[in-house]
Amino acid sequence: MADVIPIRIGVLGCAEIARKVSRAIQLAPNATLSAIASRSLDKAAAFARANRFPPDAKVYGSYEALLEDPDIDAVHMPLPTSLHLRWAVLAAQKKKHLLVEKPPAMNVAEFDKIVEACWDNGVQIMDGTMWLHHPRTHKMKEFLNDTERFGKPALVNSCFTLLADSDFLKNDIRVKPDLDGLGTLGDLGWYCINAILWAADYELPETVAALRAPVHNDAGVLLSCGASLHWRDGRIANFHTSFLSNLTMNLTVTGTKGTLHLTDFNIPQREDQASFTTLVNPKYNDLRTTWLSLPIEHTIETALPQETLMVEEFARLVAGIKRNGSKPDKTWPAISRKTQLVLDAVIASIENGFEPIEILG
Amino acid sequence: MADVIPIRIGVLGCAEIARKVSRAIQLAPNATLSAIASRSLDKAAAFARANRFPPDAKVYGSYEALLEDPDIDAVHMPLPTSLHLRWAVLAAQKKKHLLVEKPPAMNVAEFDKIVEACWDNGVQIMDGTMWLHHPRTHKMKEFLNDTERFGKPALVNSCFTLLADSDFLKNDIRVKPDLDGLGTLGDLGWYCINAILWAADYELPETVAALRAPVHNDAGVLLSCGASLHWRDGRIANFHTSFLSNLTMNLTVTGTKGTLHLTDFNIPQREDQASFTTLVNPKYNDLRTTWLSLPIEHTIETALPQETLMVEEFARLVAGIKRNGSKPDKTWPAISRKTQLVLDAVIASIENGFEPIEILG
Repeated sequence: MADVIPIRIGVLGCAEIARKVSRAIQLAPNATLSAIASRSLDKAAAFARANRFPPDAKVYGSYEALLEDPDIDAVHMPLPTSLHLRWAVLAAQKKKHLLVEKPPAMNVAEFDKIVEACWDNGVQIMDGTMWLHHPRTHKMKEFLNDTERFGKPALVNSCFTLLADSDFLKNDIRVKPDLDGLGTLGDLGWYCINAILWAADYELPETVAALRAPVHNDAGVLLSCGASLHWRDGRIANFHTSFLSNLTMNLTVTGTKGTLHLTDFNIPQREDQASFTTLVNPKYNDLRTTWLSLPIEHTIETALPQETLMVEEFARLVAGIKRNGSKPDKTWPAISRKTQLVLDAVIASIENGFEPIEILG
Repeated sequence: MADVIPIRIGVLGCAEIARKVSRAIQLAPNATLSAIASRSLDKAAAFARANRFPPDAKVYGSYEALLEDPDIDAVHMPLPTSLHLRWAVLAAQKKKHLLVEKPPAMNVAEFDKIVEACWDNGVQIMDGTMWLHHPRTHKMKEFLNDTERFGKPALVNSCFTLLADSDFLKNDIRVKPDLDGLGTLGDLGWYCINAILWAADYELPETVAALRAPVHNDAGVLLSCGASLHWRDGRIANFHTSFLSNLTMNLTVTGTKGTLHLTDFNIPQREDQASFTTLVNPKYNDLRTTWLSLPIEHTIETALPQETLMVEEFARLVAGIKRNGSKPDKTWPAISRKTQLVLDAVIASIENGFEPIEILG
């Protein structure tokens, strides 16, 4: 069958995350790892070896060369965020479908230019947010959509932090203003915002107000920050993200009747299964000294890890365009854009003395 | 031995919480339930019957009458917060030691008047925060004090909400401005603030800024709110409290090396044991698809429930004053006062357009 011919994906850059995605491309049943490019041919070759690229995968010493290759359908772009605009637009112009690392752009204006280039050239764009593709995420959504068990949404709380060591804080691209200049907000905060929007069925908040006392490094890159999001109907969400404290990856979504809670929302503790808890309509005993109903743990098995499911979804969309004349999917980039909008608003709020910023979708 | 003669405690009012504390007084080895007072003698008698008071417990039809009884050493005061000042001062003047429900006062100025009356009359004051007396709390504190496992404190996040039904929202004393006029902030928020201060070794934050979009009822009582607390050294804490969403009782304390997490910090799920998790220096596998170290669950048994341990501690302090000439303990009221100070600051911040309020200890 035509649709099992795998989509040929090239990797544009040897970033850390490219190792994980390269494996995911190899594991995805409808994709194949066709090329690697780096500005250094030696580095590209070493990356291909270290990550067990297929023997026939091509190795390029420049991004342009890979983009010129007519045997590549799509690229994974793990470059620093500040380079996305240039290379994503060029990739689109070269008719390469685009799986771009998050955040896809430095701001929504840049993102819109990238998307415009994609639509102009009939190529798919999807960002590299993996957890949205996990079957656990779909199962959790069923719970949030269940008005009997969850009720109406009221509050989301998300916290994603990690402790960066001194080498990271000095040298990592995520602390360099000219590379991943959005710092922890673009890295871990992206997932917090994304999870909050996911829980809100991607309805944008009315306002976003940054929490006070964000921490920047000397170059002005965010190392720690947070924000509150407010919807017109009274729903609220709070998040905190930081490179300055121990790994914490919590997501709590509270409705009028039920609560969803997990502590590994972005990277599940295990590859083959993942859990979350729900607490529905809890009651105490008469004297309120004991809980009569306890949180229930739900465990979801998955044959393929979430990053592979992401690649599979991307390749499925690309195959549809390439073979069936489908239009590029606009659902995934719409999610990316909303996440990027909120991210912009957090920065604007910090720059405006923590005043709430109105979100204009 | 003299010190096993139980401290005789009278209960001033038939509030819901008085049922739990009455049982705790009965269970405490060094206290005895000696009297109940209500403005209605019938109501007091019914309360004594329903809560299995000892046959020799006295039943009073006025608070004054109980306070005049020379055979009462101490009172539990579960009255609405707005009545505390009047009755707590009178109780102190009548030389009754005081276990007062939280929040002990409407604001720190009132609290200081109550404490002054207690010190003037040589009586103990302690507020009714139960969870601080649970052995789990002490065990968690050991973790937070362990610089090898926890590192330096960075972030506290606490969320305590419950879904009030329409009867509660119409009739409960916690939504009446002239009764428990501090609403959810004084009720559930008290515990959030208290837990944050506990995690900070009771070091007051430098500033407190309320989160935007608090919800008040028509009478101006808080039904939902939150705040960020900031310390000079960069530590931060965020909390949210509400009567408008499903029961959530989370506390997460993140240090540079370790994270403490629990979802029932204020009322443990079981009376005889309670758990928390710690995650220390976690690592992913090489590709960051699996956690190599997982949160560890710690379970602490307790022979007596936390509210009984609270009464036991209170009675121990009272016995020391009464029999050994000890001075009233000032540690517990200092904690109450700090909690009350932060609570005042949250309200001040809401009233001042969410500006940060400086805390002057």
